[in-house]
Amino acid sequence: MKAKVQVFLKPGVLDVQGKAVEAALHGLGWADVSGVRVGRTIEFDLTETDAAKAEAEVKAMCDKLLANTVIESYRVEIA
Amino acid sequence: MKAKVQVFLKPGVLDVQGKAVEAALHGLGWADVSGVRVGRTIEFDLTETDAAKAEAEVKAMCDKLLANTVIESYRVEIA
Repeated sequence: MKAKVQVFLKPGVLDVQGKAVEAALHGLGWADVSGVRVGRTIEFDLTETDAAKAEAEVKAMCDKLLANTVIESYRVEIA
Repeated sequence: MKAKVQVFLKPGVLDVQGKAVEAALHGLGWADVSGVRVGRTIEFDLTETDAAKAEAEVKAMCDKLLANTVIESYRVEIA
């Protein structure tokens, strides 16, 4: 199965990278852009064929390695 | 409208961050993981209300700032 994990800073946490991108876009003339958030996406293949088991496995990976759950939240998609 | 941009290294380009994550996951006991690719996601709000115009605008942003099109490809989602 294919797994896709999206990791973002939690809403209350200042996203400096997002602020920098927003300032750069404004500087280039796109003044209508707001609320920029930058996160990371991790995609990979799993040999597990059961979607529920795969999701549980990927969530465990997120908690242990892929996300810093103190300041980051994650979304898991299995396909 | 909400825009979501996903930027990944092109298939032929070595993804060192992905390789590092893959090695770490194998080290933690998830041996069934393969083909890890790490990309970034940029989410933001646009005041533009026409989906086609918004998409064209976001693609221009990608070409100019958000992605390095020599080594990276991007996907745009407008919602």
